[in-house]
Amino acid sequence: VPALAGLYTPIATPFRADELDEPAFRSNIRHWMKTVLRGLVVLGSNGEAAHVSDAEGDRVVALAREEMPAGRLLIAGTGRESTHGTIEASVRAARAGADVVIVRTPGFYKGQMSTEALVRHYSLVADASPVPVLLYNVQMYTGVLLAPAGVERLASHPNIIGIKESGGDIGHIAEVVNRTPPDFTVLAGSATTFSAALFVGCTGGILALAALVPAACLRLMALVSSGQLEEARRLQRQLNPLARSVGTLHGVAGFKTALDLIGLTGGAPREPLMSLPAGVVEEIRQQMRDLDLPVHG
Amino acid sequence: VPALAGLYTPIATPFRADELDEPAFRSNIRHWMKTVLRGLVVLGSNGEAAHVSDAEGDRVVALAREEMPAGRLLIAGTGRESTHGTIEASVRAARAGADVVIVRTPGFYKGQMSTEALVRHYSLVADASPVPVLLYNVQMYTGVLLAPAGVERLASHPNIIGIKESGGDIGHIAEVVNRTPPDFTVLAGSATTFSAALFVGCTGGILALAALVPAACLRLMALVSSGQLEEARRLQRQLNPLARSVGTLHGVAGFKTALDLIGLTGGAPREPLMSLPAGVVEEIRQQMRDLDLPVHG
Amino acid sequence: VPALAGLYTPIATPFRADELDEPAFRSNIRHWMKTVLRGLVVLGSNGEAAHVSDAEGDRVVALAREEMPAGRLLIAGTGRESTHGTIEASVRAARAGADVVIVRTPGFYKGQMSTEALVRHYSLVADASPVPVLLYNVQMYTGVLLAPAGVERLASHPNIIGIKESGGDIGHIAEVVNRTPPDFTVLAGSATTFSAALFVGCTGGILALAALVPAACLRLMALVSSGQLEEARRLQRQLNPLARSVGTLHGVAGFKTALDLIGLTGGAPREPLMSLPAGVVEEIRQQMRDLDLPVHG
Amino acid sequence: VPALAGLYTPIATPFRADELDEPAFRSNIRHWMKTVLRGLVVLGSNGEAAHVSDAEGDRVVALAREEMPAGRLLIAGTGRESTHGTIEASVRAARAGADVVIVRTPGFYKGQMSTEALVRHYSLVADASPVPVLLYNVQMYTGVLLAPAGVERLASHPNIIGIKESGGDIGHIAEVVNRTPPDFTVLAGSATTFSAALFVGCTGGILALAALVPAACLRLMALVSSGQLEEARRLQRQLNPLARSVGTLHGVAGFKTALDLIGLTGGAPREPLMSLPAGVVEEIRQQMRDLDLPVHG
Repeated sequence: VPALAGLYTPIATPFRADELDEPAFRSNIRHWMKTVLRGLVVLGSNGEAAHVSDAEGDRVVALAREEMPAGRLLIAGTGRESTHGTIEASVRAARAGADVVIVRTPGFYKGQMSTEALVRHYSLVADASPVPVLLYNVQMYTGVLLAPAGVERLASHPNIIGIKESGGDIGHIAEVVNRTPPDFTVLAGSATTFSAALFVGCTGGILALAALVPAACLRLMALVSSGQLEEARRLQRQLNPLARSVGTLHGVAGFKTALDLIGLTGGAPREPLMSLPAGVVEEIRQQMRDLDLPVHG
Repeated sequence: VPALAGLYTPIATPFRADELDEPAFRSNIRHWMKTVLRGLVVLGSNGEAAHVSDAEGDRVVALAREEMPAGRLLIAGTGRESTHGTIEASVRAARAGADVVIVRTPGFYKGQMSTEALVRHYSLVADASPVPVLLYNVQMYTGVLLAPAGVERLASHPNIIGIKESGGDIGHIAEVVNRTPPDFTVLAGSATTFSAALFVGCTGGILALAALVPAACLRLMALVSSGQLEEARRLQRQLNPLARSVGTLHGVAGFKTALDLIGLTGGAPREPLMSLPAGVVEEIRQQMRDLDLPVHG
Repeated sequence: VPALAGLYTPIATPFRADELDEPAFRSNIRHWMKTVLRGLVVLGSNGEAAHVSDAEGDRVVALAREEMPAGRLLIAGTGRESTHGTIEASVRAARAGADVVIVRTPGFYKGQMSTEALVRHYSLVADASPVPVLLYNVQMYTGVLLAPAGVERLASHPNIIGIKESGGDIGHIAEVVNRTPPDFTVLAGSATTFSAALFVGCTGGILALAALVPAACLRLMALVSSGQLEEARRLQRQLNPLARSVGTLHGVAGFKTALDLIGLTGGAPREPLMSLPAGVVEEIRQQMRDLDLPVHG
Repeated sequence: VPALAGLYTPIATPFRADELDEPAFRSNIRHWMKTVLRGLVVLGSNGEAAHVSDAEGDRVVALAREEMPAGRLLIAGTGRESTHGTIEASVRAARAGADVVIVRTPGFYKGQMSTEALVRHYSLVADASPVPVLLYNVQMYTGVLLAPAGVERLASHPNIIGIKESGGDIGHIAEVVNRTPPDFTVLAGSATTFSAALFVGCTGGILALAALVPAACLRLMALVSSGQLEEARRLQRQLNPLARSVGTLHGVAGFKTALDLIGLTGGAPREPLMSLPAGVVEEIRQQMRDLDLPVHG
C-alpha cells in the first residue's frame, strides 16, 4: 500500500477582520480530528496559500500540528514560483511540524515550464526538503501541467512519495498511475470524478468535499474497491451537486460558505475573492440538505 | 438494456486509385461479420465521411447492407452542416439499408451552435428520419460540444435512441449518463478511456480499436461490469498504445495502416490526409505484436 | 500593385422557402455593381457555402457572372475537405464564370493539418485550377491556421495570387505580409481591425461590412495609405459596432438582417443557424442609423 | 498628452550566486540613464518579481531610485494575489522611491476573477496607494484579462493613470484606447506589434526590446506618429527577430542573455527558469549583429 493512501481534506484558512482567526482554525481542526479523515492539508489552494504571508503560513502549520495527534498526517503546501523560495518554505513547514509538503507547479512563467524545467525544480526541492514531497498538478490555477513522463522520472526520487492530481482528466490520471510504481501514491483532487479516478488506480483523495461528508467519501472508496459499481455511481451522482459548488464552480468562497453552513467557521475569503450572493448560498444549503447534512442558519 | 448496448467499430472506406475499392470494402466487412461485433458504423469520422461524395456514400451503405445479415446493426453517418442536408442524407441512408443514423454536430458556424440551435437541429432531423437517430459528440473534429442539458432534452424524443461521446472527458460522459433515462444508450468513442467510460455508465462503444481486437474490447466490458477492476486496469493499459495510434495520435492514417497490417485493406486516406512515415508504421506493427496480433508484411 | 488589391464583399445567399431566391440574389448584385466595390465573393462563409449543394453552388456562380460586368472580379469559394473535391469544385466554378477561386483550409481532421499537409493540398489545387487561387485562413470556422511559413512557400506558386486572412491577429498578418513578395495580395477579413491590417501591409479587404458601407470602407483605406492616422482611428471606431454585429458577434444572421434593413434581401439563414431575436435586430438598426444609413422597416 | 506617454523598459534583476547582484544592477541602470528612455520599470515580469522576496524587492526599488535622477520615472511592480498584499507592496515601493506602481492582475484563482472582482481589487489598491497606479494586463503569465469594460470603469479613478497591455491583440488594445479618456495612458507591452499598437492609439510602450535598442524604438514611435507607414513597417520588420527572442519566445532567459551580449549584466535567471542552450545564444547574437548592435563575447 502506498504510504499516503487514504482520504484527506484541504482545510480553509479562516480570517476575522482580515487577520488569521486562530480560535476558529483550531476549532475546525478539532472537528475534523473526530472524523475518518487520515489527515489534513493546510496552505493548499483551498487554504488560500496565495493570500497568506510567510509568517501567517508558519503559524498555520504550527497551530495545525498542535491540534493534530501524531497519527494524523499534516501536509503543508509550500509551492512557490522560485525553486529557492519553495525550498525555504518547505524547510520552515517541516520545522513547524508538517509530515509532508505538497508542492504545486510553478506557473507564472508558463511558457518556460518544460518537463525538463519542472523535473529539475522538483528534484532540487526534494533533495533539500527535510520531509517527503507530494507533487501537485493543479492546472486550473497554475496553467501548467507536469506531464506523466515527468512524474515517471520524479517517482524514482526517494523523497518524492506521490502526486495530487487536481484535474478531472481521467486518461491523464490513468497514465500517471500506469507509469509509476505501486508504492507511489496518486491522490485525486476532483470530487466530481472521484470514483472514476479511484477506478483507474488512485488510492485516495484530497477533497474539499471530504471536509463536509468524509464518511460518504470513504464509502465511495470502499464501493469502488469492492467492485460495487452501480452503488458507486449512485453515490457519486448524489454527491456531485455539492462537490461542484465547493469545487470548480465557486472555489474557496463556495467551500467557506459550506463550512459556515455545517457549523464550522469558513468566513469570507480574502479579497479579491468575493463572498457568494445570497441566492448561491441558498443553493448550497439545499444541496447539503439533499445529502441529509444538518445545516445551520 | 438500452437498444444499442454493445460493441461496434467505425469502419474505414478503402480507396484504390482514389476511387472506392468495393471488393476490399466487402471483404473487410466479411471479416468483421465473423467477430463478436454487434454492428458496424459506416461513413463516420474514421470512414472519411468528409471526403466522400453523396453518391459514394449511398454506395457504401448499400454495399455494407449486402454483406451484413439482418441481425447485425448497420449504423450510417449522415451529419451535414445544414439541417436540410442532414435530413436528405438520413433518408437516403435509410433507403439504402441503414438501421440507425449517427449524426455529428454541425461545426462550421461554431460560435452560433448554442444548445438551443443544436436541440432544434436534432429534433428536426429526428422528426424526419425514417430510422432512429444516434447523437454524436466529436468535439475534436467539429469544435462543438452538445451540452449534457441539450442531450437531456433530446433524450425524450422517441426517434433519438442514444449518443456516441467521442471525447475522453469522463466527468462530461458521467453527466450525460446521469441526465438521461436507462433506455437511452451512451456509447464511448475513446478507446484509451473505454473502461472508465464504462465505469461511469456507458453500455458499449464505437471504437476503431474494436476493428482490430474486438474480443479484447468485449472482455474489457465484461471485466468492468463484473467489478474486476484490477484486471480491467491491466487490460486497458495493454491496449492503450495501439488505441492511441489508431485514435487521436494518427487518426485515419493510423487506423488504415493497422488494417493493412492485420491483413485487411486500409490503403491510403484521401488527401489532404497523408500516409504515415515508415517509422510510425513500424511502431504500430510493434504495438500489434505486443498484443499477440498476427501481423502481415 | 498586387493583382487583387482592393475592396470586396462576401455576399449572402438569400433563400425563400429554403430554396435559392434567384431574383433577390440578382437584385442584390445589381445594387453592389453601382458601388465602389472592386468585386464580389460568392460561396464564402458569409454565403453559407457549408449549407449549399453543389448544384446550387454552380447556379450561384452562374447567376453572379450574368449580373457582373467583366471589369468586376467574381471570386468563388470552392474549399472542400478533400483535395479532390476542392479541385472538382474549382473547375466547375471556373467553368461557370469565376475569375478567381478562394479556398478555405480543410478543417475536419484538424490534428492532421500540418503545414506540410496544407502546402501539399493547396499546391495540388493550384496545379489543377483553371483560374488563380486565393488562399483563405478562417480559423474561427475551420479551427485550422495555415502558418506564415506555409503561406511563404505557397506564394511562389504561379497560380496562387494571394490570401484572405479572416482573423484579427495583426502580428500574424504582418508576418504573412513580410514573408511574401509585393505582388502577392494579402486581404483582410476582419472589419473591426481593418485599419490595423492595412497599416501592417494588407492592400485590401473582403468584408461583410463593405456590403453595407462600401464608401466608408474605401475611405478608411485612403486614410491609412495617406498616413492620416487620427482620422483613420476615428472612422474605424465609428464603424466598429456595426462591424462587430455583422462579423463575429452574430455572423450570417447578423449580416442577412443588416441587408434586409438597408432594403436588400437577406432573409433567414438555413438551419441550424437561427434568425436574430427582435432586440438584436433593433440594436443593428440603431447601429446603422448611427452611421447615417437609410434604414428600412 | 497622457501623463505617462513615452518609452520605458522593464529591467532585469541580475543575480550572482543566487543573490541580488547590486553593483551590476546599479551599473545597468547607469547605462540606461544615458539613453532616450523616459523611465524604467523594476519588479515587472521581466524583473522576475515572482522570484524575489519582499526584502529584495524593497532593495531593488531603493537602488534604482539612487541611480535615477528625479526627471526619470521609476515604476515598480507591486501586484500580488491578494488585495491586502498588493496594497502593502505599493506602500513600501512608494516609500522606497517609486513614482508609479504597476499592478498585474491577480491570476491564481482565475475562474473567480470577474470584471467585478478586478474592478474592486484595483479600486481598493488605488485608494490606498500613495503614488499613481498603472494597470497591467499580462494574460500570457496570469491567465486573466481585465476586460475593456473594466478598464473603462477604472479609468475614472483619480489615482489610476493608465494601463500596460502586454498582449498583441490589437483589436483589444484599440477598444481599451477607445473606451478611455485622452489623458489615460495606454502603453504597449509587445514589441513585435509595437507599431500597430501605436497606430491604434497607444502613446508609448514598456518593452524589453527598448533596453537593447531604445533609439530604434523611439524612432518607430516617430515614424508612426508622422504617418510614415512604409518606413515604420520596414523598421518593425527589422526589429522583430530580436523582439521575439527577448519576448514570448525565450522570456527572461532571452532578455538576460541579450543584456550580457551588449555588455550589461543579465546573468542566469533564478530557477526553475533555465539558461539558454548555446545554439540559441548564437541566434540572438546574430539577431543583434543584424541590427548593427556591438556584441560582446
